[in-house]
Amino acid sequence: MTRDVTILTEADLRKAVPLDLAAVDCIERAFRELGGGKVVMPPVLSMELPAANGEVDVKTAYIPGFDSFAIKVSPGFFDNPLIGLPSLNGLMILFSARTGLVEALLLDNGYLTDIRTAAAGAVAARHLAPSEVETAGVLGTGVQARLQMQAAHLVRPFRRALVWGRDRNKAEACARDIASLLGIEAAISESPAALAAQAQLVITTTPARAPLLQTGALRAGMHITAMGSDQAGKNEIAPAILAAADLYVCDRISQCETMGELSSACAASLQAQVSPVELGSLLYGTAHGRQSDSDRTICDLTGTGVQDTAIATLARDAAMRLGLGATIGV
Amino acid sequence: MTRDVTILTEADLRKAVPLDLAAVDCIERAFRELGGGKVVMPPVLSMELPAANGEVDVKTAYIPGFDSFAIKVSPGFFDNPLIGLPSLNGLMILFSARTGLVEALLLDNGYLTDIRTAAAGAVAARHLAPSEVETAGVLGTGVQARLQMQAAHLVRPFRRALVWGRDRNKAEACARDIASLLGIEAAISESPAALAAQAQLVITTTPARAPLLQTGALRAGMHITAMGSDQAGKNEIAPAILAAADLYVCDRISQCETMGELSSACAASLQAQVSPVELGSLLYGTAHGRQSDSDRTICDLTGTGVQDTAIATLARDAAMRLGLGATIGV
Repeated sequence: MTRDVTILTEADLRKAVPLDLAAVDCIERAFRELGGGKVVMPPVLSMELPAANGEVDVKTAYIPGFDSFAIKVSPGFFDNPLIGLPSLNGLMILFSARTGLVEALLLDNGYLTDIRTAAAGAVAARHLAPSEVETAGVLGTGVQARLQMQAAHLVRPFRRALVWGRDRNKAEACARDIASLLGIEAAISESPAALAAQAQLVITTTPARAPLLQTGALRAGMHITAMGSDQAGKNEIAPAILAAADLYVCDRISQCETMGELSSACAASLQAQVSPVELGSLLYGTAHGRQSDSDRTICDLTGTGVQDTAIATLARDAAMRLGLGATIGV
Repeated sequence: MTRDVTILTEADLRKAVPLDLAAVDCIERAFRELGGGKVVMPPVLSMELPAANGEVDVKTAYIPGFDSFAIKVSPGFFDNPLIGLPSLNGLMILFSARTGLVEALLLDNGYLTDIRTAAAGAVAARHLAPSEVETAGVLGTGVQARLQMQAAHLVRPFRRALVWGRDRNKAEACARDIASLLGIEAAISESPAALAAQAQLVITTTPARAPLLQTGALRAGMHITAMGSDQAGKNEIAPAILAAADLYVCDRISQCETMGELSSACAASLQAQVSPVELGSLLYGTAHGRQSDSDRTICDLTGTGVQDTAIATLARDAAMRLGLGATIGV
């Protein structure tokens, strides 16, 4: 008996899944379910390929109420740019949550990961940033710098953007892109500290291995989302900031303890001074979010399988509505 | 820049990868590399979907010298037969071991897993069974019962086959198939003990949760390969048999301790009496195999990522030589 499997390419998926409020709401629903405690989300499978300076991660989650679950494979091969290829890559496979049969192959080259990662930033901003954000700042100048600002703007329509990067030219290009994308004023900052001094919402998107923001950067009424750390050894904000914040939220405590900003706080023996709350618990209503406009809040995002299952399901449904993709009988 | 990804269906893969000595040699090479110590093989990622009586396993391994590595996803949804679908399923994805780019999607519905699993049985028989096997017996009457006997016959061309199963009709059908496939005599046995009393090579392929073979079943000069246990709670042979054997070999010690026959020996506090040797160490030459024709040997196979990477690479190469499959630009 032959069944049809849907095959969607990156081009299809870019048409089907823009970074919009539907994507943000979809990721918010996934986190809310995670907070409900009935999600099954195993630890990330990670494999290193030292001979190729590569690694591959596999994430998945089963979310009650979603008809499908995704398995996402994300290779990162860091010598690829030397031969003109991107470092990051990958695909998602969507399976029926009732029968386990393959439903769709999403050959997204990492596009859906970009979208679900930025959407999680918007969920954090929606629930943790102060209600009024005049200026938002981003550390880093890559794809996520642009997407995170775009996503945050959906929920906090700030009028001014600041960008800091180690490479001034890249920072200027990133600021120009953000200004053009969002139709707002955007400028570069001379330092992470100068940026943090002017922004009510700061998003860090770098692969830094030493803190870019020191104690004092987190002022009253401010929110920082740190999403660059996704591996042991990465660290964007000083561990003392986590201890000093009024509220530290993260996507998954167990995961952030090994690969997020929380891991650096643990390494600095500051974990007793941090009371981690999961984003899902906050959305599900079992934990409190920001209590006042003067609270200083942090969100630490490492990327979770629920986001992958949610975005892959959204993508397949949207692609089917639009008649995109090919099918193959298996 | 668009790249081509090869898509192979189960029909393509059945043409490309028969169960033959090339498949056995390919799996043997994978185990030998595993014994060499330079393979990277993370623990299996496992996720349960209790609402659907389902589970999904992900296996992978990087093998130096192989151009590619596979990620295999194996869903098992045990209520599927109620709606006319197979319980087991899945696919493999082949990635370049140099760049991490997706090379091929192998939509095999579990076929390649069947082949690599049977081929591992043949590797075990080749290196552990007595040199002369007149009669081989199999417990179980499913796909693996047939394939394991077919694979073992490639390396030990026995003249007589015995089959035992809980369902006499299924056992008779299985014996008829084996007789026809291998052109030999095949009969059913009345009990696992009766089968073991007459065979020099026994292969167990059942999902049993209580031992089918008791102490005494393992006679001098005999070899048993137990390949049914692949999850905690499964158990085909009495733990005391492991302790009594002259040699206990398994595919991966760490994995067999949690999901193989070894796990039952550990649960029975017999692990101090078992000295596990990995099949790869034996092939690599760092451990001894059978020392005499009278040795009583066991091989415990739970299924490993090296087998998946090896068979997926073989399958892609064979399919390309035969001009099979479709391509899609991504």
